[in-house]
Amino acid sequence: MNFDPRFTGRKFSSVGTRPLRPDGIDKVTGRARYGADFNMAGQLVGRVLRSPHAHAVIKSIDTSKAEKLAGVKAVITAKDLPDLTDGDAAMYDILDNSMARTKALYDGHAVAAVAAIDARIARQALKLIEVDYEVLPHVTDVDEAMNHHAPLINDAIFTEGLEEKPVKASNVTKRTQFGHGDVHKGFAQADFIVERSFKTEQTHQGYIEPHACVASVNPDGTADLWVCTQGHFVYRQHCAQLLGLEASKLRVTSSEIGGGFGGKTHVWAEPVALALSRKAGRPVKLVMTRDEVFRASGPTSATSIDVKIGATKDGTITAAEATLRYSCGPYPGSWAEIGAMTAFACYNLENVKTVGFEVLVNRPKTAAYRAPSAPMAAFAVESAVDELAHELGMNAVDFRIKNAAQEGTRASYGPVYGPIGIGPTLEAVKNHPHMKAPLKANQGRGMACGFWFNFGGQTCVDLNIGMDGSVSLAVGTVDVGGSRASLSLVAAEELGIDYSQLKAIVADTSSLGYNDMTDGSRGTFSSSMATISAARNAIKILRDRAAQMWDIPVDDVVWEKGHAIAKGEKYGNLSALSLKDIAAKSGTTGGPIAGHSELVADGAGVSFATHICDIEVDPETGATRVIRYTVVQDAGKAVHPTYVEGQYQGGAAQGIGWALNEEYIYGKDGRLQNAGFLDYRIPVCSDLPMIDTQILEIPNPNHPYGVRGVGETSIVPPLAAIANAVSNAVGVRMTHIPMSPPRILAALDAEREG
Amino acid sequence: MNFDPRFTGRKFSSVGTRPLRPDGIDKVTGRARYGADFNMAGQLVGRVLRSPHAHAVIKSIDTSKAEKLAGVKAVITAKDLPDLTDGDAAMYDILDNSMARTKALYDGHAVAAVAAIDARIARQALKLIEVDYEVLPHVTDVDEAMNHHAPLINDAIFTEGLEEKPVKASNVTKRTQFGHGDVHKGFAQADFIVERSFKTEQTHQGYIEPHACVASVNPDGTADLWVCTQGHFVYRQHCAQLLGLEASKLRVTSSEIGGGFGGKTHVWAEPVALALSRKAGRPVKLVMTRDEVFRASGPTSATSIDVKIGATKDGTITAAEATLRYSCGPYPGSWAEIGAMTAFACYNLENVKTVGFEVLVNRPKTAAYRAPSAPMAAFAVESAVDELAHELGMNAVDFRIKNAAQEGTRASYGPVYGPIGIGPTLEAVKNHPHMKAPLKANQGRGMACGFWFNFGGQTCVDLNIGMDGSVSLAVGTVDVGGSRASLSLVAAEELGIDYSQLKAIVADTSSLGYNDMTDGSRGTFSSSMATISAARNAIKILRDRAAQMWDIPVDDVVWEKGHAIAKGEKYGNLSALSLKDIAAKSGTTGGPIAGHSELVADGAGVSFATHICDIEVDPETGATRVIRYTVVQDAGKAVHPTYVEGQYQGGAAQGIGWALNEEYIYGKDGRLQNAGFLDYRIPVCSDLPMIDTQILEIPNPNHPYGVRGVGETSIVPPLAAIANAVSNAVGVRMTHIPMSPPRILAALDAEREG
Repeated sequence: MNFDPRFTGRKFSSVGTRPLRPDGIDKVTGRARYGADFNMAGQLVGRVLRSPHAHAVIKSIDTSKAEKLAGVKAVITAKDLPDLTDGDAAMYDILDNSMARTKALYDGHAVAAVAAIDARIARQALKLIEVDYEVLPHVTDVDEAMNHHAPLINDAIFTEGLEEKPVKASNVTKRTQFGHGDVHKGFAQADFIVERSFKTEQTHQGYIEPHACVASVNPDGTADLWVCTQGHFVYRQHCAQLLGLEASKLRVTSSEIGGGFGGKTHVWAEPVALALSRKAGRPVKLVMTRDEVFRASGPTSATSIDVKIGATKDGTITAAEATLRYSCGPYPGSWAEIGAMTAFACYNLENVKTVGFEVLVNRPKTAAYRAPSAPMAAFAVESAVDELAHELGMNAVDFRIKNAAQEGTRASYGPVYGPIGIGPTLEAVKNHPHMKAPLKANQGRGMACGFWFNFGGQTCVDLNIGMDGSVSLAVGTVDVGGSRASLSLVAAEELGIDYSQLKAIVADTSSLGYNDMTDGSRGTFSSSMATISAARNAIKILRDRAAQMWDIPVDDVVWEKGHAIAKGEKYGNLSALSLKDIAAKSGTTGGPIAGHSELVADGAGVSFATHICDIEVDPETGATRVIRYTVVQDAGKAVHPTYVEGQYQGGAAQGIGWALNEEYIYGKDGRLQNAGFLDYRIPVCSDLPMIDTQILEIPNPNHPYGVRGVGETSIVPPLAAIANAVSNAVGVRMTHIPMSPPRILAALDAEREG
Repeated sequence: MNFDPRFTGRKFSSVGTRPLRPDGIDKVTGRARYGADFNMAGQLVGRVLRSPHAHAVIKSIDTSKAEKLAGVKAVITAKDLPDLTDGDAAMYDILDNSMARTKALYDGHAVAAVAAIDARIARQALKLIEVDYEVLPHVTDVDEAMNHHAPLINDAIFTEGLEEKPVKASNVTKRTQFGHGDVHKGFAQADFIVERSFKTEQTHQGYIEPHACVASVNPDGTADLWVCTQGHFVYRQHCAQLLGLEASKLRVTSSEIGGGFGGKTHVWAEPVALALSRKAGRPVKLVMTRDEVFRASGPTSATSIDVKIGATKDGTITAAEATLRYSCGPYPGSWAEIGAMTAFACYNLENVKTVGFEVLVNRPKTAAYRAPSAPMAAFAVESAVDELAHELGMNAVDFRIKNAAQEGTRASYGPVYGPIGIGPTLEAVKNHPHMKAPLKANQGRGMACGFWFNFGGQTCVDLNIGMDGSVSLAVGTVDVGGSRASLSLVAAEELGIDYSQLKAIVADTSSLGYNDMTDGSRGTFSSSMATISAARNAIKILRDRAAQMWDIPVDDVVWEKGHAIAKGEKYGNLSALSLKDIAAKSGTTGGPIAGHSELVADGAGVSFATHICDIEVDPETGATRVIRYTVVQDAGKAVHPTYVEGQYQGGAAQGIGWALNEEYIYGKDGRLQNAGFLDYRIPVCSDLPMIDTQILEIPNPNHPYGVRGVGETSIVPPLAAIANAVSNAVGVRMTHIPMSPPRILAALDAEREG
């Protein structure tokens, strides 16, 4: 597609406005249909039996009693999901995680499932399944799992990324390294060096809606899946591959989504539901409980990170180094790799080196959570940066401004940046009234920076113009954060019509071409590119139809402000034709008018944010309260500013929860002890101040309107910003997230005693 | 699109084969989701109050008691469907028919409706609505309604089509005339003239699935409608216009359809369901009962037809004339017009004249029923033709062959025919073993011809190729008779892949461009044109991608048998790339591969059939039994011959029911007396012989594969073929359809007495 090089000066009509969200009424009136709000005639209830052991060989499973229970229509084990992955290791892991094959690898790992006529019978049936386990030693801590005495979780796995192949198996599945320059030389040049180790605990995305689906498999190899997901096309690919279906035969419809944040980018129970339906010969609804969501969907990595940064007296960073260990659950991942890429991405560094280790533990398979892996790395790096500024006697913002990456900087993970927003966010923070507001006793202010790559990828849009001139937009990226509104604004902008003339829907997998998931902050970026392209294709046809109606050459017709205009004095008698005028005649000028686009959205623009946070620590209890919070982030171009602000606020809110309270707590028995919202504490309304936002717009030159992704970066700085605020409030450097009251109190006590 | 002029010699690979139907398993396992198989959270039950009077002024409606009943969430009358039709008379009639505004115009006319939390309360509420009617005189018979003393059904309507405007209102709303030559001169040249009057009674399509929908209207002007329909895009247009919505804001999803045959081309209760939902603020499910379907959906016209045909001794027809009076229900229609167009379409006539009168009666609004209006006209004409042959002493087939239309004939309704199939069907019938089979006592053989125009119109198809090379076809013409199979065959043919690689779905109105309804036998004709065009567009992209993969010019790449082939000796080293090979790389060669088409399918090919029928009459009871039946029809090209045969058989079966038993019986009070399948007798399995079929293929030159429509023509000849068989069996010329046992017996008695 053609990009408009003048977008920076472009005057927008629709883009940048704040119309009502099109899904709002459905959601507040209860009509919006989520994962569990779909039913099929004759549908059964699916339930999953899960391992109570963190690590155990499955010696045998006897399902005979369950099968005999009246009302049970199917019982399945791994045998009913035979391995069709044909050497595709990543798919094999997804298969094994869906239903354990030889070993249960974590507390909650699925080992069998039933489909019955109601939930009561399904639960009864689960109790009648007899599993003979041989319990093995387990390990859940990321550092312990790297110890060479640790129980081996998967003895077939050898470490990738080492120059020499290791002599024995290990729980470390991969080592990755990024950077440039010579850190030894750099540290030798430094006047001050900060070196610290950090740890973060595993968190869950905490989406309100549990995973839910209705699956229906026919004997002829066709199937339907209604499911709550961030990517129904990807679910289609994975489920089709695991079940041995052709992708086009599996129609996946995405429901409304009650939060995903990365946790719904991965199939969990969907292949099980399909296998149950295939065996029972009836549709199966499978809804995970909250307990199952915690135990057996995909939380973040727990991490252990060492950071070392050196600077000269004038505040120039001379070297930066980090070693990052990320837990992956029991299957290999690339989580530390992402952490290693993002860790120093905000800075212009001559000498930088990061090393990541992917570590297996007996915990659920790690999944993406909003800017996955970046918040933990930023926590470690931004804490160290703040500490170094303090040692240098420099203001933390000025120190960052001095070392900030800019256009032309070679990023620590490789590429050279184009126009970027880290400097502007820091300048905005420096000048923000929040930075000058007075603080009271036991209060502290912290700030921190964050980075996210943002993704592009495959995207399709169909734009159809009705005979009444109203426009239907069918998109394929699941709307997790307002993309139906933003894409309607983009189409309105291109076509030159009013937003109210459009309606966008998320089309099912049989109605539209393949789309990558809504992840990596790619939804609005990539689907707006496809929408612009589709709209421009429709405009070509609109011009052609107008030319027909006027009987003049199409080259004499231009499209301006929603109208075809005959260009040239000789056409002075021809009044402009609106989109509606042309649409009304479409039946006699060649048929329905449409624009389509299938593309790979290249050139996602990197995104930076800087956050400011004021906290108050209660020195008696260790309880920390966020009293003021400001997000400054570069959006490239904010298509629907209200949604952008919502993303900024949402990321900050989730980061605050992660920073202060959220964590998976495992007992010595390897069992999760807090698999519910009473014990796993996400922030509620009363825990949070109104989060203030400031949108900067440094256009992404690779997008016609300058759009970057906005969804993820806002969760990157909070862990560090709050840790820095705590340090400034009470003089204790917190190195372990979450900074829950017991941990703060312990740190304060240690300080008082020390 | 480009048509392949060589299609007549084309060798097909997929087209013409008989794969299993893709919707079969769903239908036999009960998973197929029909109109009533959809539910929404919080949905209410809608019920309609209907007039018990054939003709009455609605003086007032008191809904207050119903509104007070606990559990009632909305009560509506015409006031809740305000007139937004802005002078569009046809839409106003649809509105008034959906909910009577000032007068109830037939027994069953909707006057109010309720939405309640369950069906019991809804029924109770209907009883609490008090309607004050002023009963008016009524008329239900088409001939009586034309009498100038008849009660005027709509006094604002004057007859169209007369040279002078009539001085007073009339129940005749339109007069139309077709023909050419001079019939007076023609009759003067004739040696033999047959002149007779005929009557046919009103029938219903008798689809097994009653009308059903779930409607949900939001306060923001968006709405959803799940509905059983033959044309969800047309339902969208009509409902949007009646409710004052923009079309793109109303998403209509068509369910599977349990028969339509024309009766589901028209909105009935859908605007009411939407208005109820709008008022109640909740989704409303509205399912018509069988009684309501009979009383208040759209049956055929009842007709009264005069025919006069003259011929010379050598069997040349010199003149043909018909006057056709068709009932329209209480609103104007164009039913007699169609009858007047089709009546003599099978013949090559020098002098021909037909006149049609559209007549209002106090019966439900007439709707299309499979080749609407043609079976009655053919009954009259083909009966007279047979009688004339008899008088001439000619074989009925030979007489028709002598006078049959052929390529170049000017049709009685205007156009000049291209290549057509009437002659070939007659020749095939002449040579068919059925014509030579012996008959027993009380048995008779009849034959008759039939014609249908077939429609084209607006059609859209999206074809999306998945990364595994499987193909999704999204079409917009509702699949009433196997189009998902036939369109998959067409796409497989064009792409050169196996049928099993494809899956076709009927996309909803938000996912695809506008499509005309599945009516006029246009589904496969028009959507296959769009499918071929979409596939050819996809092939362009496939060639382009192959060229990229090979790094050669795209002009050197040809598409053959599902593969890209590098053309030329210099590319001898490049192996052909299959669609699957190219699809697998699509993510890195430019993104998803698709082909789209939006077009107006012009050039539908007219269709002809000739049927042979053997019947046996029981002279004691007047009961008639069809003992053998053969359909010979031109399909143009039979895409999926099994479905084509099914259409031939289905049309014949429905025609047999119409001929022998089916009729609306009105009492003197103007109330329908047989609104149920016990009293309205459609043929069941045991009533029918296996219907033999013979497909002829005289290609339609306007379609790339030669396809014509096939769905409707097969219902045109049966009324006449059976009447001719009865005449041949017992020597009684039947002039009143249905030829039910009492009517046959009366005719036999009259003959015996006469």
